[in-house]
Amino acid sequence: MEMKLPGQEEFEASSAPRNIPSGELDSNPGPGTSPSPDGPSDTESKELGVRKDPLLFIQLNELLGWPQALEWRETGSSSASLLLDMGEMPPITLSTSTHLHHRWVLFEEKLEVAAGRWSAPHVPTLALPSLQKLRSLLAEGLVLLDCPAQSLLELVEQVTRVESLSPELRGQLQALLLQRPQHYNQTTGTRPCWGSTHPRKASDNEEAPLREQYQNPLRQKLPPGAEAGTVLAGELGFLAQPLGAFVRLRDPVVLGSLTEVSLPSRFFCLLLGPPMLGKGYHEMGRAAAVLLSDPQFQWSVRRASNLHDLLAALDAFLEEVTVLPPGRWDPTARIPPPKCLPSQHKRLPSQQREIRGPSGPRLTSAEDRHRHGLHAPSQELQRTGRLFGGLIQDVRRKAPWYPSDFLDALHLQCFSAVLYIYLATVTNAITFGGLLGDATDGAQGVLESFLGTAVAGAAFCLMAGQPLTILSSTGPVLVFERLLFSFSRDYSLDYLPFRLWVGIWVATFCLVLVATEASVLVRYFTRFTEEGFCALISLIFIYDAVGKMLNLTHTYPIQKPGSSTYGCLCQYPGPGGNDSQWIRTRPKDRDDIVSMDLGLINASLLPPPECTQQGGQPRGPGCHTVPDIAFFSLLLFLTSFFFAMALKCVKTSRFFPSVVRKGLSDFSSVLAILLGCGLDAFLGLATPKLMVPREFKPTLPGRGWLVSPFGTNPWWWSVAAALPALLLSILIFMDQQITAVILNRVEYRLQKGAGFHLDLFCVAVLMLLTSVLGLPWYVSATVISLAHMDSLRRESRACAPGELPNFLGIREQRLTGLVVFILTGASIFLAPVLKFIPMPVLYGIFLYMGVAALSSIQFTKRVKLLLMPAKHQPDLLLLRHVPLTRVHLFTAIQLVCLGLLWIIKSTPAAIIFPLMLLGLVGVRKALERVFSPQELLWLDELMPEEERSIPEKGLEPEHSFSGSDSEDSELMYQPKAPEINISVN
Amino acid sequence: MEMKLPGQEEFEASSAPRNIPSGELDSNPGPGTSPSPDGPSDTESKELGVRKDPLLFIQLNELLGWPQALEWRETGSSSASLLLDMGEMPPITLSTSTHLHHRWVLFEEKLEVAAGRWSAPHVPTLALPSLQKLRSLLAEGLVLLDCPAQSLLELVEQVTRVESLSPELRGQLQALLLQRPQHYNQTTGTRPCWGSTHPRKASDNEEAPLREQYQNPLRQKLPPGAEAGTVLAGELGFLAQPLGAFVRLRDPVVLGSLTEVSLPSRFFCLLLGPPMLGKGYHEMGRAAAVLLSDPQFQWSVRRASNLHDLLAALDAFLEEVTVLPPGRWDPTARIPPPKCLPSQHKRLPSQQREIRGPSGPRLTSAEDRHRHGLHAPSQELQRTGRLFGGLIQDVRRKAPWYPSDFLDALHLQCFSAVLYIYLATVTNAITFGGLLGDATDGAQGVLESFLGTAVAGAAFCLMAGQPLTILSSTGPVLVFERLLFSFSRDYSLDYLPFRLWVGIWVATFCLVLVATEASVLVRYFTRFTEEGFCALISLIFIYDAVGKMLNLTHTYPIQKPGSSTYGCLCQYPGPGGNDSQWIRTRPKDRDDIVSMDLGLINASLLPPPECTQQGGQPRGPGCHTVPDIAFFSLLLFLTSFFFAMALKCVKTSRFFPSVVRKGLSDFSSVLAILLGCGLDAFLGLATPKLMVPREFKPTLPGRGWLVSPFGTNPWWWSVAAALPALLLSILIFMDQQITAVILNRVEYRLQKGAGFHLDLFCVAVLMLLTSVLGLPWYVSATVISLAHMDSLRRESRACAPGELPNFLGIREQRLTGLVVFILTGASIFLAPVLKFIPMPVLYGIFLYMGVAALSSIQFTKRVKLLLMPAKHQPDLLLLRHVPLTRVHLFTAIQLVCLGLLWIIKSTPAAIIFPLMLLGLVGVRKALERVFSPQELLWLDELMPEEERSIPEKGLEPEHSFSGSDSEDSELMYQPKAPEINISVN
Repeated sequence: MEMKLPGQEEFEASSAPRNIPSGELDSNPGPGTSPSPDGPSDTESKELGVRKDPLLFIQLNELLGWPQALEWRETGSSSASLLLDMGEMPPITLSTSTHLHHRWVLFEEKLEVAAGRWSAPHVPTLALPSLQKLRSLLAEGLVLLDCPAQSLLELVEQVTRVESLSPELRGQLQALLLQRPQHYNQTTGTRPCWGSTHPRKASDNEEAPLREQYQNPLRQKLPPGAEAGTVLAGELGFLAQPLGAFVRLRDPVVLGSLTEVSLPSRFFCLLLGPPMLGKGYHEMGRAAAVLLSDPQFQWSVRRASNLHDLLAALDAFLEEVTVLPPGRWDPTARIPPPKCLPSQHKRLPSQQREIRGPSGPRLTSAEDRHRHGLHAPSQELQRTGRLFGGLIQDVRRKAPWYPSDFLDALHLQCFSAVLYIYLATVTNAITFGGLLGDATDGAQGVLESFLGTAVAGAAFCLMAGQPLTILSSTGPVLVFERLLFSFSRDYSLDYLPFRLWVGIWVATFCLVLVATEASVLVRYFTRFTEEGFCALISLIFIYDAVGKMLNLTHTYPIQKPGSSTYGCLCQYPGPGGNDSQWIRTRPKDRDDIVSMDLGLINASLLPPPECTQQGGQPRGPGCHTVPDIAFFSLLLFLTSFFFAMALKCVKTSRFFPSVVRKGLSDFSSVLAILLGCGLDAFLGLATPKLMVPREFKPTLPGRGWLVSPFGTNPWWWSVAAALPALLLSILIFMDQQITAVILNRVEYRLQKGAGFHLDLFCVAVLMLLTSVLGLPWYVSATVISLAHMDSLRRESRACAPGELPNFLGIREQRLTGLVVFILTGASIFLAPVLKFIPMPVLYGIFLYMGVAALSSIQFTKRVKLLLMPAKHQPDLLLLRHVPLTRVHLFTAIQLVCLGLLWIIKSTPAAIIFPLMLLGLVGVRKALERVFSPQELLWLDELMPEEERSIPEKGLEPEHSFSGSDSEDSELMYQPKAPEINISVN
Repeated sequence: MEMKLPGQEEFEASSAPRNIPSGELDSNPGPGTSPSPDGPSDTESKELGVRKDPLLFIQLNELLGWPQALEWRETGSSSASLLLDMGEMPPITLSTSTHLHHRWVLFEEKLEVAAGRWSAPHVPTLALPSLQKLRSLLAEGLVLLDCPAQSLLELVEQVTRVESLSPELRGQLQALLLQRPQHYNQTTGTRPCWGSTHPRKASDNEEAPLREQYQNPLRQKLPPGAEAGTVLAGELGFLAQPLGAFVRLRDPVVLGSLTEVSLPSRFFCLLLGPPMLGKGYHEMGRAAAVLLSDPQFQWSVRRASNLHDLLAALDAFLEEVTVLPPGRWDPTARIPPPKCLPSQHKRLPSQQREIRGPSGPRLTSAEDRHRHGLHAPSQELQRTGRLFGGLIQDVRRKAPWYPSDFLDALHLQCFSAVLYIYLATVTNAITFGGLLGDATDGAQGVLESFLGTAVAGAAFCLMAGQPLTILSSTGPVLVFERLLFSFSRDYSLDYLPFRLWVGIWVATFCLVLVATEASVLVRYFTRFTEEGFCALISLIFIYDAVGKMLNLTHTYPIQKPGSSTYGCLCQYPGPGGNDSQWIRTRPKDRDDIVSMDLGLINASLLPPPECTQQGGQPRGPGCHTVPDIAFFSLLLFLTSFFFAMALKCVKTSRFFPSVVRKGLSDFSSVLAILLGCGLDAFLGLATPKLMVPREFKPTLPGRGWLVSPFGTNPWWWSVAAALPALLLSILIFMDQQITAVILNRVEYRLQKGAGFHLDLFCVAVLMLLTSVLGLPWYVSATVISLAHMDSLRRESRACAPGELPNFLGIREQRLTGLVVFILTGASIFLAPVLKFIPMPVLYGIFLYMGVAALSSIQFTKRVKLLLMPAKHQPDLLLLRHVPLTRVHLFTAIQLVCLGLLWIIKSTPAAIIFPLMLLGLVGVRKALERVFSPQELLWLDELMPEEERSIPEKGLEPEHSFSGSDSEDSELMYQPKAPEINISVN
């Protein structure tokens, strides 16, 4: 069992038959090939790439010291020697002992000996010579593949059976290797004690894993089936020549307390030798461990049949390493783990790719597209050519999933999702309800908002094509409703009946759109349109919020010195009319005597409300002013805005555990509203509050729940309503479909398919219902729906230090949404509590929503580029591929479009702005004459015709690195459209 | 002149004599060894490390195409081929041509062909095989060292004189190499045009540098004397075998338009061959360029005498490269340049270090210490043992520099420094003057503040040991003065005379401290003391600012609904007394009729000020309330605070050119005050304003400029004043000396030495002067002084892309300070303008100062650690070396000390707080029993005794990497105490 020459292959031949457990890979192609609807295992294995083999935990133990010599310099902690020098620690009878200093799962962690903690995971860096030395040591050393050892004792006996060792040395070495190593025990937080005084004691129960091995917190992070690899390295004074051994155990065996975590060991590597200059063996040990942690090397070495294979794997590793020049990079700098690990499937040797066979195709270009978050022309958006063909197809596609839409909700995660989305929905209902009441002079209000949200949302969750969608009053519809109200007021119309007819027409038009499969046109809504849409609505939000806030200063004017709004008297109808009252208040306030002194028994200085209460009449220019309200409202407005913004940022801060951070940032609006209400209640000023009806009846006094079809309007207005309805239909179509496109993006890996036509059909039906009842109108809301999906993410649990959890998919079901809306309906009885919410707080939240939506789009990033000097600009991919002047030109065109839209919005023709939004599609089409398709691909997306106009190879930018040019593969780590956050809601 | 075998050395032998121009290094040891006072050249060469050789600009030109074949795939831009495929560009008659694609000075820049711009500089990464292939190509290729070619033509002829080329091929190759390469012209911003249609045209004037070479913006960034290295790489279809050539020119020659910038070329490398798989020659070319950009390789290859030396240098490079494993690092990711380049002097071979000889020793541990910003026990702080010995030494040390202190100021930079520091000083004078007036009921005010600042500051600049210091009223002294004032009020003392005696005593005590050389004790002020001092003062600032702000709500109460502070009447002395007035106001305001209706001809509702003006008397509970002021003041307060904070952050943002960013952040307080004043003026509310006297006379009415020695106080108070004076002396000593220690830190590389004793002497003298005149007291202010030094930084100009400018030192002189204070004195006549500054704005700036000072100390960072989960904590060095529990314990002890100080400050014994601050030194001494010296070294600094108690080797943590253990050398890039920002001013 000895191997000293690279060519000596008789040993390997004997163990060859067991080398490739190919059955492991070939025998179970089933689950991979037929993707079951909810097959997470398939997705997971895809994500892990080549790692079908068990995960490997690697640790480097260092052999330290030598009974007679004080050789501490390898420990990486000069403090140890210092403390000893200074006599701070009692002198220890030193003996050889092993210590764990580095460990790897994906990334390297180093034990900071002095600080007694593991370093942050970082990308391991090696010196080239250590790899080369390792190679020659292995080439001349002992390589045991599929070693049948069943315990550490057997293993050590096999490893030390080397010619070059005398029996005496062999015994010494065996004793040393069997010694119990010192692990740093993270749970107790104590320092590792250097040097054990009883080197042989541990061997009594050496095969029994220790308690701290089980208690190690790393253990829970490792997936079941994980294996261990151990590297032992060190300088031993009694050795005359280097001793290298590499062992692959046939069956993984728990080697006593050798590893920090009690795992069965698969690999064992021994690198010992006489003292040499530098940190030779330590670095060689690190090199061996880094090699073992490389997925490609691991794959090869698990299948290696002889030394040649082992060395070939090492050489293959060397072929692919990245080299940093010494003059420009400090080798001791720790590189934090990259956000995305490099894709491993390109590194697979052809043999390996073939072996993976059946599950392989999933990793080809379709998969690549998914990963890059690019639009793939969905199957759902193919035109059938029949009336209602798309709708029928949608129903057919979704119907089989219907039972599972309820069964899949049986997971604990769904409870927290319900709580989160419920609070978000209620906040939204309050905010929009309050604003709607504001905008329509109480034609609708908070009560309608709650009722409508509950009814429409629940109905949509039960019927829709994409049940993850949360229906809500969205910004665009609110804006339109405001315009519609002022329009109807201009023509002295009875608003709700007029609105009913608009709703009826909109429902009709939407049904026509469903019938004609108009939803396939969403492919013309590129990012240019989406961003124009979002930016305009966000700006309207911001403008309105600030405008409403400033309006308050008209209602509650600021009292400047010298202004005449000063002074107010309370005048009583007749002299002595309220003498008894008068006397009663006197002792309360000494200054009231003033009125007596003046002989004014028919007047007092009581504040207006009290004056009225006592039968008096407030007279004077100051009676109508309420001081301090304007500035206090402004303070509330700013406080709620900045507080919500700040809480949103908590998510990415370093403070608090991640649960707390997530909670604070998820509930930022709720918390900001609560803070505002608390401040207001604390000072008790008469700020304007949210108007809430006291009973369960419509906000508008004197109407029933059903809107009368004509009211006082002439009949022909019901026909004329078709015109604004046409505009609203465009708006609803755009709002609904842009959201639907975003929600059904491939990067969310939805399994149950979309239902664009079915969704629009539901919206149309609900439009009719809400118009009849005089409730707000509802379409899909992007932000809440995305938050809903986000709270239902399925992620791989066992994550190695430094690794980010893998996204597996979304729990697609109808139950969470349904429960949320049932709870919202029940919250109508909360309404009386809501009257404590000051309006400025809601305006602040409104402003926050506008700012948040505006800052989430790429357009804003490009506007920022205008202000940045070129050298400070971030290394965005689009800047690598499109000249800066062209980027700026594109941004400028968007800005001009936005300016034009804003001007139209400010004219009396404001109500036609949905048409103008649709005009963005035309502008985008015209841009093809200005920009090349390549530029548009980077700045925007392509329209259907353009996709055909470009040869397939050039269509997607990432194809450029599939060939010999690999310069652009960073694209993989900068997904093109991950953060789109269109539509304010 | 052909070389095909590595061993063939006859050629190299012939050129050997010229290989090492050793005289270049040995002949001029002068400037390096005798550092002249202001020898920037020496400092610069030190900074640049080994780079005594000229800077090398390297570029990689790629040979592209072949007349018959369309071989574009090397360009890294798939878009090019696409555009051609799509017929968007007119078809070009392709020919061979060279293109620049990468360039290096320190870091790599890549031409983003499609975007037409250079990428951000990044650390070059290589694949190991390309380095190995390069090595074998060079080993078999042509190596010309000290080639005497004088032009590109000669060079090309020499290079192509290779056996393997047929005459025909040689001609073809020569034509190709002489072709004019296409450079991307950054100034015009146009894309490089691929492929020239007239390949031979350029050769007519090939030796004349092109205009765009001169216009290249890179040119100004390169220092004079820079040389170029050119690598030409590419695949040529007509070549049968690879062709490698490496040329070092004897005399650097401008090779026509070969290089992007018109520089004389020293190196020329040619790597050509038949087409091969992958990006072989391109990557080999990059490897050659990266090699040439490595300082160590460059050094060796400049001195190489034969191929063997060249390959040895390459091997030495390989020995030192950092290797990143392929599975954990994407080779195409761009690594941004590190903040500090790795130190090169450790990489020097012994031979090289010897050659550097005379200037070498500057790079040893003393230099290391400088670089790491650690305290070195200054020579200035050695005790002489004689009375006033330190003072005399200081004067002797500084006197010879006195003339240069004025001559060195003749630089444009000093003008901008004067403007900046003047504005900061005036802001400070306004803020502290305003607060002092507030705190002492007008015993002092803004006028005194201006006058005192001007007089004391100018005098100090003329006399002091460290003339860069800016004298100012600092926080601690302000706090003490406030306590002293309330103390004197408690005992009904005449404040200014009492204060005069305190000043006299303080001056006396300070003189005693100077005589006894007490300043050497500053070495006991470790960071623990400094941070305790700073934290307490900052907290007092924050508390005071918020407290004063809230106090305003008592002066200007908020009017809650139902509160009785409502209503105010204007009562006239007798009936009909002001009838004429009364009637005149009637038409202005219809509601005034009210008073007529009531029959109140002896009362009206006029606002109080107008009422008083018309001879009436305001009566009623509402007369004393001014509405809206409280909330508006709060708004002003918050606005100025947040605006100042936000502007401070602009410095590190990506927006705007750096000049604008620096301006906004430097003048953040000034701009915030201006904004506050603007807001206040815009609304015109009667907010409380800064009190400014109308004439040039003391703020306190009825006193002359000289304070009377006793006033109304009993005589014995002049003796009793010694007690508070003792406390104030401690405070002044600590405040002055902590600032002095920080200003004289080694990392600022001051050449003219410090003057601790002289500075204290000056402070004592000025103490006397300001007390006599009743002006505020002054000591050195850390923040403004640091800003002063910062505005006088000398930095190396010519910086390569990605390199940070080198710090060369400070322009040490007395003139800027002097001019600043003369201007401050002249600004006394600005005083009438200052009355428009609202007090809440000043409180906001006050809060900003407190928060900024508090957030700058390490203590705050450690407090933050308490809130961070271990895994999110930043990778601080102290966390690597001290267990987290120990760090937290240290922080907790500091917190407890701070709490105790705060409690003492809140009791009637508040005035003794300076004594308690001094007690921190004792606490720090006691900490030695709790923490080991190693831990204290990381958490704090060492006290003088402790330094002796640790063996020299262990004293400084960075020594741990000077040996074999290099794990900790990151320390070099995390200076231990760079950001200390003690003492609020």
